[in-house]
Amino acid sequence: MRIALGLQYDGSAFSGWQTQVNQPTIQDELERAITSFVGNDTQNSHPIRVVTAGRTDAGVHALGQVVHFDVEVERDDWSWVRGVNAFLPESIVINWAQAVANEFSARYSAYERTYIYALHAGPCRSPMAADRAGYVMLPADRWFDIDAMRSAAKCLIGEHDFTSFRSSECQSKTPVKTIFSIEIFSNEPWLYFRITGNAFLHHMVRNLVGSFIQIGVGKQSAHWMAEVLATKNRSVAAPTFSPAGLYLAKIAYPEEFNIPKPWLSSSWLPKAIFV
Amino acid sequence: MRIALGLQYDGSAFSGWQTQVNQPTIQDELERAITSFVGNDTQNSHPIRVVTAGRTDAGVHALGQVVHFDVEVERDDWSWVRGVNAFLPESIVINWAQAVANEFSARYSAYERTYIYALHAGPCRSPMAADRAGYVMLPADRWFDIDAMRSAAKCLIGEHDFTSFRSSECQSKTPVKTIFSIEIFSNEPWLYFRITGNAFLHHMVRNLVGSFIQIGVGKQSAHWMAEVLATKNRSVAAPTFSPAGLYLAKIAYPEEFNIPKPWLSSSWLPKAIFV
Repeated sequence: MRIALGLQYDGSAFSGWQTQVNQPTIQDELERAITSFVGNDTQNSHPIRVVTAGRTDAGVHALGQVVHFDVEVERDDWSWVRGVNAFLPESIVINWAQAVANEFSARYSAYERTYIYALHAGPCRSPMAADRAGYVMLPADRWFDIDAMRSAAKCLIGEHDFTSFRSSECQSKTPVKTIFSIEIFSNEPWLYFRITGNAFLHHMVRNLVGSFIQIGVGKQSAHWMAEVLATKNRSVAAPTFSPAGLYLAKIAYPEEFNIPKPWLSSSWLPKAIFV
Repeated sequence: MRIALGLQYDGSAFSGWQTQVNQPTIQDELERAITSFVGNDTQNSHPIRVVTAGRTDAGVHALGQVVHFDVEVERDDWSWVRGVNAFLPESIVINWAQAVANEFSARYSAYERTYIYALHAGPCRSPMAADRAGYVMLPADRWFDIDAMRSAAKCLIGEHDFTSFRSSECQSKTPVKTIFSIEIFSNEPWLYFRITGNAFLHHMVRNLVGSFIQIGVGKQSAHWMAEVLATKNRSVAAPTFSPAGLYLAKIAYPEEFNIPKPWLSSSWLPKAIFV
């Protein structure tokens, strides 16, 4: 049978989602934990492999990650949650488990992904936000030009070739993706971006955030974003911003699969962002 | 001359404030950083010793810690901030520096200390809150009895013998302390306590929080707090709660010293708590 899991993780101690030789990854920890739970209960301890909705980079967090895997044992949903959590480190937590149809794929059934980027700005860093937010040094009497950033966001909505915001290591078949919405929440000394799209290129959100910041601090005008997008040239956009502030927040699936909503309110980010 | 510093730290990687043999402590990091900054600038590199307003335990954080030290070199205030920060790890940040009168003592001039305790509750832990909040497992459809906790708080206000909430290692000359206020903020799945007093015994806030939780989950009635207080017996109160949720938030000094307010808004806790 096929099981879907919803999970959250603090990515700061991991070399990203995907299995790598001699590097701590979330995928490895999760597969090891599921295999241990299944093996402990049934003697049937072949290694479990999971399929994920979104492979996150080193240092990137997840609040609403979804995976699926196939397994021969039957457990009720809450047993999966408690059982797998018992084998996971504190930095990875399963929030829900659900038996799903064999047609469900955590990766291919997803039609929409939402990322949140949390940014802290001010004269000094905040030690409590070190691994949990990006940081921009700003004098105490200055703040971002939020109107300029919101104006710049408009040109990104819809289907576009996002080559200018694509990492050279990106493995996507096409640079054409669709952004459904970009919302910017300002709550000094915090700034949050919520970006929803059908899918994202490698480093795309962090590259967009880097470019938004250039506009927000007045180094570039609001019109610059459309120029960068139009050039289809990665060297024109701002450098990739820190992974520390990036959260994979939500994956949307067709209603027929009846996938639970992520437990966003258990994160430290303000609820208003998740509405 | 005498310099006061305001600082924040993430205490999770430290064995507390105070210097200990072969243990990483915040005091050691800070004294080393100040000494390096002074030595680099002046050749005058005798080790600097700091006096602190509140010695925090292993794993406890600070948002508004204050220290002072004596030094022969003169620097403008912002140079102290930038200069010392350059020698500190990401987990400790100086927010302000100020030359103060020789009568000022970070420890003895303080007349009021405020602690905040952040608690997360729900069916699953939050990985993002692991080192930053205490945790209570509660089913999804349950929440604390906030009225009972607030009612229990009343008996603690004022001058009392807090022996029942005192660690056996406490070095205070007297168990008699004065609590000025206890406020409880509920914002599911978060619960925050803000406790202000003239001074606190060792483990006192964490022991109080442990007892509040017993009342909040219905294991004890609201009246039980007064009974515990009256017995003056540590074995009657609840066990010491986790250090992860405890924040030294604010130290108050007489106005004549003109000590800056802490930069509470740069923490990840909601602003409402700091009003």
